[in-house]
Amino acid sequence: MSSEFGHLLKISVFGQSHGTAIGVVVDGLPAGEAVDLTELQAFLDRRKPGKNPLSTARKEADAPTFLSGLENGMTCGAPLCAVIQNGDQHSGDYAGLTDTPRPGHADYTAGIKWGGHADMRGGGHFSGRLTAPLCIAGGIAKQILARRGVFVGAHLKEVAGIPDAPFPLRPSAELFQEVAAKAFPVLDDGAGERMRAAILAAREDLDSVGGIVECAATGLPAGLGDPMFDGVENRLAEALFGIPAVKGLEFGAGFDAARLRGSENNDPFVLDHGAVAAESNRAGGILGGITTGMPLLLRAAFKPTPSIARPQRTVRLSTMEETDLEIRGRHDPCIAHRAVPVVEAVTAAVLLDLLLEGNHGTF
Amino acid sequence: MSSEFGHLLKISVFGQSHGTAIGVVVDGLPAGEAVDLTELQAFLDRRKPGKNPLSTARKEADAPTFLSGLENGMTCGAPLCAVIQNGDQHSGDYAGLTDTPRPGHADYTAGIKWGGHADMRGGGHFSGRLTAPLCIAGGIAKQILARRGVFVGAHLKEVAGIPDAPFPLRPSAELFQEVAAKAFPVLDDGAGERMRAAILAAREDLDSVGGIVECAATGLPAGLGDPMFDGVENRLAEALFGIPAVKGLEFGAGFDAARLRGSENNDPFVLDHGAVAAESNRAGGILGGITTGMPLLLRAAFKPTPSIARPQRTVRLSTMEETDLEIRGRHDPCIAHRAVPVVEAVTAAVLLDLLLEGNHGTF
Amino acid sequence: MSSEFGHLLKISVFGQSHGTAIGVVVDGLPAGEAVDLTELQAFLDRRKPGKNPLSTARKEADAPTFLSGLENGMTCGAPLCAVIQNGDQHSGDYAGLTDTPRPGHADYTAGIKWGGHADMRGGGHFSGRLTAPLCIAGGIAKQILARRGVFVGAHLKEVAGIPDAPFPLRPSAELFQEVAAKAFPVLDDGAGERMRAAILAAREDLDSVGGIVECAATGLPAGLGDPMFDGVENRLAEALFGIPAVKGLEFGAGFDAARLRGSENNDPFVLDHGAVAAESNRAGGILGGITTGMPLLLRAAFKPTPSIARPQRTVRLSTMEETDLEIRGRHDPCIAHRAVPVVEAVTAAVLLDLLLEGNHGTF
Amino acid sequence: MSSEFGHLLKISVFGQSHGTAIGVVVDGLPAGEAVDLTELQAFLDRRKPGKNPLSTARKEADAPTFLSGLENGMTCGAPLCAVIQNGDQHSGDYAGLTDTPRPGHADYTAGIKWGGHADMRGGGHFSGRLTAPLCIAGGIAKQILARRGVFVGAHLKEVAGIPDAPFPLRPSAELFQEVAAKAFPVLDDGAGERMRAAILAAREDLDSVGGIVECAATGLPAGLGDPMFDGVENRLAEALFGIPAVKGLEFGAGFDAARLRGSENNDPFVLDHGAVAAESNRAGGILGGITTGMPLLLRAAFKPTPSIARPQRTVRLSTMEETDLEIRGRHDPCIAHRAVPVVEAVTAAVLLDLLLEGNHGTF
Repeated sequence: MSSEFGHLLKISVFGQSHGTAIGVVVDGLPAGEAVDLTELQAFLDRRKPGKNPLSTARKEADAPTFLSGLENGMTCGAPLCAVIQNGDQHSGDYAGLTDTPRPGHADYTAGIKWGGHADMRGGGHFSGRLTAPLCIAGGIAKQILARRGVFVGAHLKEVAGIPDAPFPLRPSAELFQEVAAKAFPVLDDGAGERMRAAILAAREDLDSVGGIVECAATGLPAGLGDPMFDGVENRLAEALFGIPAVKGLEFGAGFDAARLRGSENNDPFVLDHGAVAAESNRAGGILGGITTGMPLLLRAAFKPTPSIARPQRTVRLSTMEETDLEIRGRHDPCIAHRAVPVVEAVTAAVLLDLLLEGNHGTF
Repeated sequence: MSSEFGHLLKISVFGQSHGTAIGVVVDGLPAGEAVDLTELQAFLDRRKPGKNPLSTARKEADAPTFLSGLENGMTCGAPLCAVIQNGDQHSGDYAGLTDTPRPGHADYTAGIKWGGHADMRGGGHFSGRLTAPLCIAGGIAKQILARRGVFVGAHLKEVAGIPDAPFPLRPSAELFQEVAAKAFPVLDDGAGERMRAAILAAREDLDSVGGIVECAATGLPAGLGDPMFDGVENRLAEALFGIPAVKGLEFGAGFDAARLRGSENNDPFVLDHGAVAAESNRAGGILGGITTGMPLLLRAAFKPTPSIARPQRTVRLSTMEETDLEIRGRHDPCIAHRAVPVVEAVTAAVLLDLLLEGNHGTF
Repeated sequence: MSSEFGHLLKISVFGQSHGTAIGVVVDGLPAGEAVDLTELQAFLDRRKPGKNPLSTARKEADAPTFLSGLENGMTCGAPLCAVIQNGDQHSGDYAGLTDTPRPGHADYTAGIKWGGHADMRGGGHFSGRLTAPLCIAGGIAKQILARRGVFVGAHLKEVAGIPDAPFPLRPSAELFQEVAAKAFPVLDDGAGERMRAAILAAREDLDSVGGIVECAATGLPAGLGDPMFDGVENRLAEALFGIPAVKGLEFGAGFDAARLRGSENNDPFVLDHGAVAAESNRAGGILGGITTGMPLLLRAAFKPTPSIARPQRTVRLSTMEETDLEIRGRHDPCIAHRAVPVVEAVTAAVLLDLLLEGNHGTF
Repeated sequence: MSSEFGHLLKISVFGQSHGTAIGVVVDGLPAGEAVDLTELQAFLDRRKPGKNPLSTARKEADAPTFLSGLENGMTCGAPLCAVIQNGDQHSGDYAGLTDTPRPGHADYTAGIKWGGHADMRGGGHFSGRLTAPLCIAGGIAKQILARRGVFVGAHLKEVAGIPDAPFPLRPSAELFQEVAAKAFPVLDDGAGERMRAAILAAREDLDSVGGIVECAATGLPAGLGDPMFDGVENRLAEALFGIPAVKGLEFGAGFDAARLRGSENNDPFVLDHGAVAAESNRAGGILGGITTGMPLLLRAAFKPTPSIARPQRTVRLSTMEETDLEIRGRHDPCIAHRAVPVVEAVTAAVLLDLLLEGNHGTF
């Protein structure tokens, strides 16, 4: 399957960082769904670099062109293809990297897989740049979900060990919008200031930092997902581990659940305005792989950007000698803050796929 | 897909905890592979309950019968079906639970999905008992892998917040065997003693505890897996989140990577006996979704057993009133130690699937 | 995928002809569906051999045991597993066949694929016997469909070049039942007599004949299926070519459409009781891969049974010499008449899968 | 899955006939494969219309632009995306057709599926124009296969009931090239003359004719494909029924096999230059779903072009009244001859996918 995920809704990503263009085919979008291009562009701009010293100075306009699937501003049922032309590439910066693979990058494994034919300029197909087409697909999914009362939002839960406040038990659509509108997507702006300082300090040190993105979805009906290997967690995991740099994923209390007792971790069922709800949400809205109707809650861990300016040890493959490597080019001292909309996008796409499938448990 | 995972190797699990039988169909096993039934039974016995006060008193013989796919002790190419008859069930213990769903269990979501028709006795199809057929499939996969120099092992990394020692950088097959032979699968027996005490203390308190399983695989060639959504992490995640009670998953440094700097997290490439290797393994053997040739390393977080004897709050669905619930029956105060071979099994099955597929990057 | 088909409804077949048992796992059946076991057994009996000289003298009781998924006569949502124990096998009849592959059989290709480990007694996993579990899955699907007004029926359209009458434009459920109740499933009993004579004549000649099964489904809503590669034709084709001995498949006018002019082949749209219908049905109920609401109509061509008693030329693989082969054992002089319920079964399973998916074109 | 097929090699088609562009994403191509763009264009030109009165006067340049996956004339491992800009469209010709669906077209079913949002100008996503991107994918597959000694060729086996000569038992690569170079792709040019006359006669009558394409592949190893539902026939069928207008498919003797006796239909195994071969090839190179090593042989039936200039009866959906419809625009009086390279392309793509997968029966 490679660069594709989804069941009834298939999202297929293509392109290399320094190739002609990057893009996405979205197959299975329902017809008759308006796509607000201004809102979509605003969503794409949230992951755009070049806005401030927290990210790479590289400019990416990230303005999609639609080749199919969209007529008069509405989906028409046919597969949607959107393309972003590449530009502002300094491919020269990457010369020779395939022979001296960068630690923490896919240079080495791509070389094993594809030999010398791999186009690894700027990370090639493994580049974080490929998250732009993911955001096109997910941004459209978010609009479709919102019309049905399903809202997806995220914030930067942690950077360099500095925690943001957690989402409340039932985050509102307004809260999601508020965070999305911020230049730095945190709930607690004080924490955000400390995170920014940590990112800039890493940059000063020719280094980088990682972070954790927390994502929630509200308004989901109970009953989505199937048992065991086709549960909501499995399907989100399959997709979210496709975002470059994700090395961990947890739902609800996640790894902390392993440190709780059953009496602490179980969410008591209660009545809320006459409907079944849970008093807490350590399950993250999922029991047995199936949605409970409580908010979905997940966290994805992003490793620090592997591209750092400090010299690093590697092996020169042509001569099989150890050597030192200095990576030039313009890099993000942190990608976690730019990853916030990407996690939203991928989550939204998976949730729309699940909603299209419905609860086929009874018929 | 539901109760199935895999691409060329498909593992399809069936059965309910208190139904006639549970079992598995494994489609795509290569032909001519000997299955050592004694070794397989020993592997299954590692997850068997009823051996000591750390797990439920329920006896499960877990002796598989092979209906197909195995002739004269060898796989024959056709799909393999193995069945375990159920027995020693106290289904009466579960009467009425579908009306008052147990917190932390799938009772509520299964009822949403399947209505009153769901067979939730003993957890039904959502029961941890379904991990026995997974161990049949994975136990066979382990034998096939071992013949090719690929070894999979696991230990209990943490229980109730008490950590075991981590796996060394390059764990040996002997170390895997040594841990597997222990009654309590830890590297540091002192830590194991403290974990056991914590489990028994939880049991005394009519409560339960969770834990973390760490799993490694050695001997994998570099180049397995595909970019983005078909990477080794995606495929392991899709399968591992199918094990009941898993709420988090991380590879290599995982969530800790989010707290490191790039200079700390990147694994320098070095030469090891003339071959490319990495000096550390915070990548967990995977870069860009593709194996590096270093050991695969992952950790899965298990929530505490939701079945606890303490009274818990829930809702009586027939009358829509809040009520207190006391769960009877025999339950595990911790399932993480019994989950160790299950994580090995699922990991082995996914790795065999990937190996069957090979590195089709060049042709 | 091998021995499995389906999307939301997965049917996974296992077993070898002379192994311990054959069976099927059906994953994704909606919960709360009554299974009438008497009706199911009657359906299975339609493909049972040993009833008359038209088929093999081999007795197959084909009485399924349900290991999971069925509680109190109802589906419970969990995967259903049904098993048929094997018996009355004369495996000795097949000794040595793997070295001298039977023409027209899978002996040779199974040997290439699985080496000497293939269990080819009685055809192994490639045997027509594997259609019994398919009929369990499809027989249950038929019952579920019928409760929703979707009826699937079939007849023997041709044997040895002798044609039956075609289905009428709108076959009724009663007609389907009438044909199903016949010992020889044709519309025109006179044609049926001639077919039977041709089968017996072939048997006399130590030979066999082929035939064509025509299958129809009524009551399907318009709008099922997706364009291009996920159309109703594609999905039926993927499944129906899995029935042993099928070598051709056509929908509506099929190959004859290639001999018609557009003005003859196009079905004019008309109003029928105020609803859109078609005056003819050369499209077989499918346009652009999507159901029109007219009856689905397809025909599957079955080659003559490859097992014939006449001496045939083959190669002895151990010595790489040409040799003559005489196949012993009890064989069907024709399998097309026994295949009629099998085509119904597979068609019903695919249609139920499509109905579970619904028309997700708009949302 | 919709507009996509394939396992390790995924071909995803997008675009509408009169939209901005049409194209294809090919995911899973091995890296380091040269793509001869001149040869590819020559292949695409074989399906191009506008060359003579046998096809529509519409001009389609069909010159692909590559957005990704191709660097310095070689595949680089990343998904390949190729785009063809649309042009020379007379969309006005189609105004109002969604209200009065054309008989034999997908207008009606697309309207059911996608409502008024369907873009059905020129057939939209259901148009035969979408076979151009299929030919890009398949043309590249053909080049990769040829370098490994696997050759795929096709000819027009029948038009309007007029038969061409069949392929010989072992067609050569030279024969494939010879037919491909002809303006009208038949083996027997006399038959070709009669077919052309029949097409022109139909055109004179404001009508259209259908035809049958026969396709063969040589050089395939034995052992490709899996039993039952993942056989070579199933996978080809799943893909080939995605070509617009295909209503029937058969392998080897196909429907004629149903009229033969076993002694006539079985292919005796013989020795050919010391290797196992078959004396005849009524199996079409496939037994039990697995390749035998003999040439693959299949035939696909194409219905007559549904767009004809004669008045036809339909229903005006806005008023639910029967009405007469005259289709304007430029149409093909026959599409079967233009479909010859399309059948080659889809067959080649499926075969490359199978070859990438290899024979994983033993390991």
